[in-house]
Amino acid sequence: MERNLLLKIGYCGTNYCGWQTQDGFPTVQQTVEEALAELTRVKKVTVYGCSRTDSGVHARQFVLNFRTDCPIPCDRLPIALTALLPEDIACFYAQPVREDFHARYDCAGKEYAYYIRNTMMRDPLWYKRAYHYPYPLDIERMQQAAAQLGGKRDYAAFAAAGSQVKSTVRTIHHIKVEQQGELLVIRVAGDGFLYNMVRIIVGTLLLIGRGSLTVEEVLDALAKGDRTRVGPTVPPWGLYLNEVYYRPEEQIGG
Amino acid sequence: MERNLLLKIGYCGTNYCGWQTQDGFPTVQQTVEEALAELTRVKKVTVYGCSRTDSGVHARQFVLNFRTDCPIPCDRLPIALTALLPEDIACFYAQPVREDFHARYDCAGKEYAYYIRNTMMRDPLWYKRAYHYPYPLDIERMQQAAAQLGGKRDYAAFAAAGSQVKSTVRTIHHIKVEQQGELLVIRVAGDGFLYNMVRIIVGTLLLIGRGSLTVEEVLDALAKGDRTRVGPTVPPWGLYLNEVYYRPEEQIGG
Repeated sequence: MERNLLLKIGYCGTNYCGWQTQDGFPTVQQTVEEALAELTRVKKVTVYGCSRTDSGVHARQFVLNFRTDCPIPCDRLPIALTALLPEDIACFYAQPVREDFHARYDCAGKEYAYYIRNTMMRDPLWYKRAYHYPYPLDIERMQQAAAQLGGKRDYAAFAAAGSQVKSTVRTIHHIKVEQQGELLVIRVAGDGFLYNMVRIIVGTLLLIGRGSLTVEEVLDALAKGDRTRVGPTVPPWGLYLNEVYYRPEEQIGG
Repeated sequence: MERNLLLKIGYCGTNYCGWQTQDGFPTVQQTVEEALAELTRVKKVTVYGCSRTDSGVHARQFVLNFRTDCPIPCDRLPIALTALLPEDIACFYAQPVREDFHARYDCAGKEYAYYIRNTMMRDPLWYKRAYHYPYPLDIERMQQAAAQLGGKRDYAAFAAAGSQVKSTVRTIHHIKVEQQGELLVIRVAGDGFLYNMVRIIVGTLLLIGRGSLTVEEVLDALAKGDRTRVGPTVPPWGLYLNEVYYRPEEQIGG
């Protein structure tokens, strides 16, 4: 009997050209599909991911679903699949979901975290795991700005040029700036994100923290949808997909 | 005027075939020598490292020395050199040392740390930065054993086969087993180490923690110099060179 299974995985994005399969490049999707095909003894498996993370972006939690006839119990699947995956990907959890559940279309929201090492000297042990930003930052100013930049609004100014979506209105549930020793963590949660949106929000908050942009200027750029008057897109290696939300009635555990 | 300069650097060892230059392989030594040659505008620089770390081993602190006619001030050197190094290596500190100072021959001792993720599921975000060991461990038993395995003695049983040294007597100042949440950190400090010695000590402590080896058996193997009756060599990616010691009269700062 065919089941629709949901999996929760995590990965280090350094060695992958992002989530989505691209001919000739290693991707997380292809790697997971190949391991699942081996596990369930079929030629080809297609998985549907909650997000299309960019090259170098990491995931503490990433949700996908796929259909299978294989009777492997869900409590055994994560360990069996992880054993077939390379060491920079792991599967933590599996459960059956309704027949037409789709990890991306049914996703109700996500939280990303962006890691910044705000120190004079870079720490090579954070190589490809955090963004080194050596300039002094006014953290309180960033926190005050973060509190004003969320909510439901048109975020076109925070979208990479060339992205084609019907609407650029999104709801951001929170933007939090937290200092953890030498690490600055910026968490952004919302119902959906435009292309590069989280990395542009972080780039904008950094300019606010340096004093070269005010929150008023950013709010004005947002009102006018002007990408040129907000901050730059920070690099992918500081970005982590942290958590993925679904409606309570889906009863997703793990 | 030629000066003998001491540098403190750090590196992520993942992308290097260890410290020491080998034809056709990327090494930390060669990478640092090339950056120093560029910085000091000479064809070739030779650096002398405090240790020859293996492929994949990391360093929070690594000391080297080299001779140069370049008048660059020591307070500017670290930032200028770091700008020329790849992102997985950084230079933190520089100072002049006596003419015949040698980072390796004058080294008085070192501390290594070995990182173990002792969790059922592996965390892909620790990929190549810690050793995943999913078996239950009796930490107290490991701590008690660690306290008995140090001191000055013949450590031949803890040396990789085929290593050729005159004496296998070393002094281990401490072996400490510390639990930091899901991370188990084993610190080993001593005046010198045989080939793979720290990784064999950690492999031995893990077998003691699992209950498949007793400290008495290990002490007996050490007394008899029997490599076959201690633990295996754990992988390099959990190993960090943590600190390097010199005699106080060298007046090494940083």
